[in-house]
Amino acid sequence: MIRRRGAILFTDQRYTIQAHEEVRGARVHIARRSLLAEVSEEIRRAGKKHVAFEPAHLTVAQMQHLQSRAGRGTRWAAWDGFVEKLRTVKAADEIAQMRTAAQLASDVFEEILPLIKAGVTELDLAAEIEYRMRRRGASGPSFSTIVASGPRSALPHARASSKPLKKNELVVFDLGAILRGYCSDMSRTIFIGRASARIRQWYRAVVQAQEAATEVISPGVKASQVDAAARAVLERYGLGRRFTHSTGHGLGLEVHESPRLARGEKALLRAGNVVTVEPGVYVEGVGGIRVEDDVAILARGTEVLTRATRNFLEL
Amino acid sequence: MIRRRGAILFTDQRYTIQAHEEVRGARVHIARRSLLAEVSEEIRRAGKKHVAFEPAHLTVAQMQHLQSRAGRGTRWAAWDGFVEKLRTVKAADEIAQMRTAAQLASDVFEEILPLIKAGVTELDLAAEIEYRMRRRGASGPSFSTIVASGPRSALPHARASSKPLKKNELVVFDLGAILRGYCSDMSRTIFIGRASARIRQWYRAVVQAQEAATEVISPGVKASQVDAAARAVLERYGLGRRFTHSTGHGLGLEVHESPRLARGEKALLRAGNVVTVEPGVYVEGVGGIRVEDDVAILARGTEVLTRATRNFLEL
Repeated sequence: MIRRRGAILFTDQRYTIQAHEEVRGARVHIARRSLLAEVSEEIRRAGKKHVAFEPAHLTVAQMQHLQSRAGRGTRWAAWDGFVEKLRTVKAADEIAQMRTAAQLASDVFEEILPLIKAGVTELDLAAEIEYRMRRRGASGPSFSTIVASGPRSALPHARASSKPLKKNELVVFDLGAILRGYCSDMSRTIFIGRASARIRQWYRAVVQAQEAATEVISPGVKASQVDAAARAVLERYGLGRRFTHSTGHGLGLEVHESPRLARGEKALLRAGNVVTVEPGVYVEGVGGIRVEDDVAILARGTEVLTRATRNFLEL
Repeated sequence: MIRRRGAILFTDQRYTIQAHEEVRGARVHIARRSLLAEVSEEIRRAGKKHVAFEPAHLTVAQMQHLQSRAGRGTRWAAWDGFVEKLRTVKAADEIAQMRTAAQLASDVFEEILPLIKAGVTELDLAAEIEYRMRRRGASGPSFSTIVASGPRSALPHARASSKPLKKNELVVFDLGAILRGYCSDMSRTIFIGRASARIRQWYRAVVQAQEAATEVISPGVKASQVDAAARAVLERYGLGRRFTHSTGHGLGLEVHESPRLARGEKALLRAGNVVTVEPGVYVEGVGGIRVEDDVAILARGTEVLTRATRNFLEL
């Protein structure tokens, strides 16, 4: 709870010791009963007339609980995206952290390349990836690592399965690490064996779409323009309808933050934003290709944080 | 959306192929714009007067969005815990899955015992644990694996850190795997070196508290009675105020489900419940001990699903 006269962190007895060690800049309140009940009581005791809250981070059940106990004198204002908006612009030290998190993901991807071969399962590779992230100091993956091979690579949100990789298949890797609180998020697609001319052309189209989108990124540009740049390239290749998701999203303490790089998004990009750029092409029954990098908007120019090669690897 | 005349799964283009492959028993609706907008339109089109929803699984922002588009003719009823209540009673095949998930966690814990020694970091051990879960077929850990050593073991919700283990320290392990959708959740505490008489007594107290709680578990018993049984033992040892959390929780598709085994919980246990039993003792600056098993309530008697040894291991 943030008040004019300082902030209060409400937590419970499980965290007494940890709150004591870690919290700075706020008074710690250890709730003996329900956390929300004690928050409401504090609101009532302080006679607060106006309370703003983030509607995307409070459930209807929590809201009902708070309102019923705080009393009728309080007015509640839904303040959408207030904290998240502050977080879209990263300070230099945050970008430095994200650079290291991105480097870690790139290094792990390059390290597991020799393990990619027919017969290995998707889950085996996901396990190797997350294990190596941890060994390099990550507190964990930013999300459940995707390794999707063959027809499964056409599912943009497939998780790793027990399917073994086979010869003549595309394999999409989508991985990210959390390092000292900050996320990275990167995709690469490889082929096992020698790819057909058609698949090579899809790959070329995706990389060109990614380059076109990345070139557009700059302070003052509308988020939707980045998406449009990627989409225009894929349409030129006749692959527009194969690109079934948006081009990217903000990244930071969470793996999905503002701004979204999608159709209709009017937000203007700003220095300090870090976004993913991840066009893809998905053909049911055949396979998919996605290439994704993390891009930071600096005061002067942009920086691609994920450095792993984007060459088409036929292994 | 569950209607009298069948269910609809709303999803978007990213999941077209996957929904086609995986969804049974529901019509699939691929939203072209916002998911919630299309849900509201369906409600309006169908002229639905009454819609029940789970308030703990809908944010205030989502609710506002739905209500503003569905029109004023619709009445919304918050139906708290409706689906979760159905899930508290597991069918035999669900318990069989959970038995395998629990066995997996137990096996992994016993497998990493030889790696536990002074100098190894908490994160190294967490990485080994999660890696071996994956190698044994888990889709991932049920939660971020806890390895907490020395004074950090006194933090019931510490995550693994870069702290190396030292001689003469307690180490709490809290780990679980997701196997074919179902979670396990298990804790064990070991000592590096030879423990003092005081620490051995704490350990004895925790195991006795766990046994007392487990013995009480039976259909028709109040959830709070299980908590009381564990607490009574620790109080007898003068450790009542060192036990700073509740005794356990339900477990299933999610790692925290109903029923909670805590003070004041009036829910009656039923055959088909699967709960954790996890008393603990935490002494700031010194360390903590927690022993946790997953217990299934069967038609006749109970079954402890997590079989790893509960002997006090001094390594």
